[in-house]
Amino acid sequence: MASRKYRVKDIRLAKAGRLSHEWARDHMVILDKTIDRLRKSKPLRGVTVGMCLHITKETSVLLLAAKELGATVAACAGNPMSTQDDIAAYLATRGIHVYAWTGQTKKEYSQCIASVLSHKPSILVDDGADMNVMAHFDPRFDGLEVIGATEETTAGVSRIRAVERAGKLRYPVMIVNDAYTKHLFDNRHGTGQSTVDALLRSANLLIASKRIVVVGYGWVGRGVASRCRGLGARVIVTEVDPIKALEAHMDGYDVMPMANAAKLGDMFVTCTGQTGVISKAHLLAMRDGAIVGNVGHFDVEIDTAFLLGSCKVREVRPGLDECVMRSKKRVYLIGKGRLANLVAAEGHPPEVMAQSFSNQLLSILYILKNHKTMETRLYNVPDSIDVRVARDALAAMNVRIDSLTEEQITYMNSW
Amino acid sequence: MASRKYRVKDIRLAKAGRLSHEWARDHMVILDKTIDRLRKSKPLRGVTVGMCLHITKETSVLLLAAKELGATVAACAGNPMSTQDDIAAYLATRGIHVYAWTGQTKKEYSQCIASVLSHKPSILVDDGADMNVMAHFDPRFDGLEVIGATEETTAGVSRIRAVERAGKLRYPVMIVNDAYTKHLFDNRHGTGQSTVDALLRSANLLIASKRIVVVGYGWVGRGVASRCRGLGARVIVTEVDPIKALEAHMDGYDVMPMANAAKLGDMFVTCTGQTGVISKAHLLAMRDGAIVGNVGHFDVEIDTAFLLGSCKVREVRPGLDECVMRSKKRVYLIGKGRLANLVAAEGHPPEVMAQSFSNQLLSILYILKNHKTMETRLYNVPDSIDVRVARDALAAMNVRIDSLTEEQITYMNSW
Amino acid sequence: MASRKYRVKDIRLAKAGRLSHEWARDHMVILDKTIDRLRKSKPLRGVTVGMCLHITKETSVLLLAAKELGATVAACAGNPMSTQDDIAAYLATRGIHVYAWTGQTKKEYSQCIASVLSHKPSILVDDGADMNVMAHFDPRFDGLEVIGATEETTAGVSRIRAVERAGKLRYPVMIVNDAYTKHLFDNRHGTGQSTVDALLRSANLLIASKRIVVVGYGWVGRGVASRCRGLGARVIVTEVDPIKALEAHMDGYDVMPMANAAKLGDMFVTCTGQTGVISKAHLLAMRDGAIVGNVGHFDVEIDTAFLLGSCKVREVRPGLDECVMRSKKRVYLIGKGRLANLVAAEGHPPEVMAQSFSNQLLSILYILKNHKTMETRLYNVPDSIDVRVARDALAAMNVRIDSLTEEQITYMNSW
Amino acid sequence: MASRKYRVKDIRLAKAGRLSHEWARDHMVILDKTIDRLRKSKPLRGVTVGMCLHITKETSVLLLAAKELGATVAACAGNPMSTQDDIAAYLATRGIHVYAWTGQTKKEYSQCIASVLSHKPSILVDDGADMNVMAHFDPRFDGLEVIGATEETTAGVSRIRAVERAGKLRYPVMIVNDAYTKHLFDNRHGTGQSTVDALLRSANLLIASKRIVVVGYGWVGRGVASRCRGLGARVIVTEVDPIKALEAHMDGYDVMPMANAAKLGDMFVTCTGQTGVISKAHLLAMRDGAIVGNVGHFDVEIDTAFLLGSCKVREVRPGLDECVMRSKKRVYLIGKGRLANLVAAEGHPPEVMAQSFSNQLLSILYILKNHKTMETRLYNVPDSIDVRVARDALAAMNVRIDSLTEEQITYMNSW
Repeated sequence: MASRKYRVKDIRLAKAGRLSHEWARDHMVILDKTIDRLRKSKPLRGVTVGMCLHITKETSVLLLAAKELGATVAACAGNPMSTQDDIAAYLATRGIHVYAWTGQTKKEYSQCIASVLSHKPSILVDDGADMNVMAHFDPRFDGLEVIGATEETTAGVSRIRAVERAGKLRYPVMIVNDAYTKHLFDNRHGTGQSTVDALLRSANLLIASKRIVVVGYGWVGRGVASRCRGLGARVIVTEVDPIKALEAHMDGYDVMPMANAAKLGDMFVTCTGQTGVISKAHLLAMRDGAIVGNVGHFDVEIDTAFLLGSCKVREVRPGLDECVMRSKKRVYLIGKGRLANLVAAEGHPPEVMAQSFSNQLLSILYILKNHKTMETRLYNVPDSIDVRVARDALAAMNVRIDSLTEEQITYMNSW
Repeated sequence: MASRKYRVKDIRLAKAGRLSHEWARDHMVILDKTIDRLRKSKPLRGVTVGMCLHITKETSVLLLAAKELGATVAACAGNPMSTQDDIAAYLATRGIHVYAWTGQTKKEYSQCIASVLSHKPSILVDDGADMNVMAHFDPRFDGLEVIGATEETTAGVSRIRAVERAGKLRYPVMIVNDAYTKHLFDNRHGTGQSTVDALLRSANLLIASKRIVVVGYGWVGRGVASRCRGLGARVIVTEVDPIKALEAHMDGYDVMPMANAAKLGDMFVTCTGQTGVISKAHLLAMRDGAIVGNVGHFDVEIDTAFLLGSCKVREVRPGLDECVMRSKKRVYLIGKGRLANLVAAEGHPPEVMAQSFSNQLLSILYILKNHKTMETRLYNVPDSIDVRVARDALAAMNVRIDSLTEEQITYMNSW
Repeated sequence: MASRKYRVKDIRLAKAGRLSHEWARDHMVILDKTIDRLRKSKPLRGVTVGMCLHITKETSVLLLAAKELGATVAACAGNPMSTQDDIAAYLATRGIHVYAWTGQTKKEYSQCIASVLSHKPSILVDDGADMNVMAHFDPRFDGLEVIGATEETTAGVSRIRAVERAGKLRYPVMIVNDAYTKHLFDNRHGTGQSTVDALLRSANLLIASKRIVVVGYGWVGRGVASRCRGLGARVIVTEVDPIKALEAHMDGYDVMPMANAAKLGDMFVTCTGQTGVISKAHLLAMRDGAIVGNVGHFDVEIDTAFLLGSCKVREVRPGLDECVMRSKKRVYLIGKGRLANLVAAEGHPPEVMAQSFSNQLLSILYILKNHKTMETRLYNVPDSIDVRVARDALAAMNVRIDSLTEEQITYMNSW
Repeated sequence: MASRKYRVKDIRLAKAGRLSHEWARDHMVILDKTIDRLRKSKPLRGVTVGMCLHITKETSVLLLAAKELGATVAACAGNPMSTQDDIAAYLATRGIHVYAWTGQTKKEYSQCIASVLSHKPSILVDDGADMNVMAHFDPRFDGLEVIGATEETTAGVSRIRAVERAGKLRYPVMIVNDAYTKHLFDNRHGTGQSTVDALLRSANLLIASKRIVVVGYGWVGRGVASRCRGLGARVIVTEVDPIKALEAHMDGYDVMPMANAAKLGDMFVTCTGQTGVISKAHLLAMRDGAIVGNVGHFDVEIDTAFLLGSCKVREVRPGLDECVMRSKKRVYLIGKGRLANLVAAEGHPPEVMAQSFSNQLLSILYILKNHKTMETRLYNVPDSIDVRVARDALAAMNVRIDSLTEEQITYMNSW
């Protein structure tokens, strides 16, 4: 199965991919710090790592870092639409076993994950849990010996937790998403900015004064709401969690049920990790010209079956489909309802991914070192890794901070 | 010891206190919802509750609520300077055993806590841990039978955790501070706004364009930084925790060591719960006319010994002391270094305290119901209480939100 | 008439007034720069200046500056409620002919203006045009020889323009309000901050998440809206001018007619200089507990006749009247509808007034120097004064800027 | 000379251009309101209008509107790099005499202006004054009979004023740039957003926490500064005008000379209309990796001669050139120093251009109606047009506002 060592759209794109990779790497110096500390010892020598991640310029830096530390790396896309084909080509020329191109069918997408697993990786790095789910439940991989895995996203954590709750977990999984230096920055600043970028590129309308409905006020929703407000939008938040709803309200946003928001919004961004948060009924209630997009993980947040299946569809701008309903009302869908910030923009900027991927790389090394004593359960990233990444990030940006004095340490431990 | 039933500055202030109480109560409808649900059953009948809290108009609503639900209530001040004397007087006329006035000596402050404990309370509600510490370590109260306690603040939690680590905890303590509906709102929005209020009242200078140094970027620091920026200030943050420092940096603030910030700041606000975060060396480095204030818990964050002991001091505005150093440089200290937002302003606004005190009231009831099965350790406020308070708060502000559909609940539990 | 040299509430307050004056002066170094340049030449020697201004700590710095430059100064209050009595007392002890106290009747207020005019000032400095109107139309002052006047506020400019349009202007008037270094800072930053201060002091409620209706989106309204948003409020703007309404909308605020806003608002701030912008009908439509205040010039913006005349009124907090309507609904009025930021707070901070008053002082000197060639009309403050004040302000805050190069000057004049 | 009726890159792009045009038109309903009012009367019948504007999807709506109202329209590009070739092709198919493509040489750019003038337009619509300057000073067009012209930009106004000051103006020019509904929205919100868009597309780096230097604090600079801050940047402003510098400082930005800012900035955006504001010396002082771009009018604001002429240059991302200095330091230049928001993004969003172009269209009609009585000088757009556009804009966004009552009109005219 692993006879073919890579599969990409066009290997000739490698030259462009190299430029793009270098641009990312130049802005991911945090990761360099980790690599520099370990380059000589090559701690990943002999280890095969399987990675199911968005194949972007930023990801290429992680993949080549793992290789530089000695690993054999096999990688596929975390989403059928999110691959940057020039990067995939470049990775192939650099010896990564990459199975990824943009515009995959669902079947091709699954096959690529299988191709990665056929390399018999002992450590899995996952984004959304598709690879971990296949490794657990696809009989072809029953014998796969995995010593540990990581998960990058809120959506994937939710799925792998369900596997754990069902008592079916087969190996330890480190919840990279929950590291502070990951979700406080990647989910908030990364998705916040790249979502705005996606709105600008796909619709190119004025954001100032527009009513933008942010569906879900987790870390992603917070980031999106904050950045849209920063561009002058009037933001509406919808939520199911009363504590998050209260936070949004106190942050000065209008909070209301989606049924009401549907009538008011000019643009809608789903950030929930849930299914069906913008339903057919909501779409029918929207004003003519409304724009909807998703930056949660899967393309199930908006009822795309209705928009793309029951409406008259034409692409009016790159990545933007006009969906005309029977009533002649038009709703515009960004990137077929898939991750708008990856499909219609370039995903998170490199500085943010450098933090996320430092957590990934340090977690891989943690698994390698500790797997013999780890239990088969979900693990938080240890504080020491989180603090390491934060210190590296501050150093990379030349930010210096204070330390506790002896007196303060004593004070902290007294009553 | 309990022969004297209250001690206040001037009982004739009760009339003014009543107006002030009513204003607060009108804006604390969240708490009303809890009271309304329980008024008939009087669940606190026969229970004596001892409370060590800032005696403000907002606190008066909690104290009278506990009484309304059947409790005998004894209360003292959480800080020698923070009591609103009209409120204390009003509480005394309403049958609360209140021992509080503004401008207490340290000795008087301690005596008041002892007066409350001499009422033999079985449940303690504390703000800063002074009462819990006395109940644990003062031999006069060795025989006190406490079934449980609560703690309101970050600083108090830190102390009571130290007691627990030392293996000396005598009863379960519920960490009300860590409830989401407490610290996300009280520490951030409450202290954020009341700190700005304190700066305006004590100094009455233009905030816009001023360099304000926020020392510590916990929830309090975040709130203060955000509100100062909202008034146009240029905010500098100092931190010892690299993750928090990184967050502040990404939030767009200038992050630097205090030694650098000391030279740049026009105003300084300490928000750490630590000791000595603005030292004599920092004070000596400040520019002529710098203003320093503290909104952490204790008056140890700024070196007030130097400012008030070694400088030439005169009060130039109510709550603002001019401290002239030997070099003739002037630094201005708000409220003697005690909680500026309580000493120079009125503390948190009622809407915020309604959430905190709903958590307190529900935690008291939780202890009463569950104490027989609770272990002697620190407890988080259960999610059910947190969610209850959030729902009450949203209802009080007429904010409606969505609920999960059946389909979404199923989705959430699948992989 | 001028036999009595001053009239203040209590001359014994002078000591407190001195401290307050010094605090202001320390933060008005811009004005010091002008004084320093002219102290020796005493250009105002022999000139009597009549000033009708809010008698605050900041104003005391201007009055004493004029005296320091040689003038005889007579001053009265710009508003019956805005005088800081300690400042008035201090000014009296320093040789200013001051006729001002807080809580004047309308008659007393007029008498004080007359008292100032009876000193036969040749230059008038006005805030709201009451003194200029009396000098024009009160037969007692028909013979008054005025060589020029200044006007500080938008409201006063509007009135004096009406006098000019009617062909009745008797002497040149310099429109200090329209100097950039005045209205861009005083009206916006000064009133913006001091209005927030007034809301905090009078009501002490949480601003975050509240709906605050800003009536009028001139420079004052902009400042108020921006600062309220900065504290987390959800701001609604009402306007009659379509261009200003469009700006507010693009700035991300909700813009709607007052009839709609009346039903939604938690707090209302009038900033129009108009009459009747919150009418009885609007008040009847408000929600129970709504708070209304005015920071325009005169107390005619809100229908206070209805609130104070037809409702049941009691003061629930200092400066805050509860007005209970027949329907039992309560609306709360700040400072009887007079300038809330002066009545319930301390007016603009000194740094801002230093700019406004530098314009005043330089305009007085300009009149003195140029009055023989000036026409009887309204004058803008010359650019040279505006730029002078800006340069002094930047210098006072240690801000350095670039200069045009020779090449750039040439480029600017080419096509 | 006019034998060739258009010149575009590739007429086959017309189909894509039509989609793009329709997207813009759908979001420019303000302009539709004007067209609808005049469609029947065809007031521009028999008039040839020459337009020198950025040929974007938004401009296509203006050009076709003029045609719809009866005009013969000849158009060329306002910048050699800013033409959207698909739009140019579409316009050609719709009967516009369009001479524009992206990537013109300076000579081609001039020839295209000449081609437009050879159509003998009687009204000129200009963006930057190149067409007006050629009409005035190129001997080929000495006999051209122009009844009036308009100018769209700050930079162009500056040039045409220089022509007027030199006494060489040949026909009245309406300063569309100075209409409130133009510069308050187009320069601020339009350039603000499209500049952020250009930064995201060309560099795709994290904006949050970056130091962005905004050179010039006119309306464009204000917009750019505000939007960059809205995305979390730390903004530094440089200025030569002390009043604008003071405003920037009070708005909370760090203001300093360029020589200092050069060392600190991560990104630089010039917004001045001046020449040489980022000089070779500044470029040499920058940190490795700094990014510079221009959104003023001409490509003279940054020393591109040094960057593109004396450094080693390669394009690392579309629209982003890496310039390696002798010292090996790298500075990155967006779009060769030409208007970044047009070259690296799509220019202003349609809603904003609808306001600007409504002013243009109404000014053309104004010239046509009034030219016989107009003097040969610069004219402001009359208030009536400004108010008309504002009312249309509000109506297009369903925003309703209040009107003055009779009582208020009387009040306004009294004293």
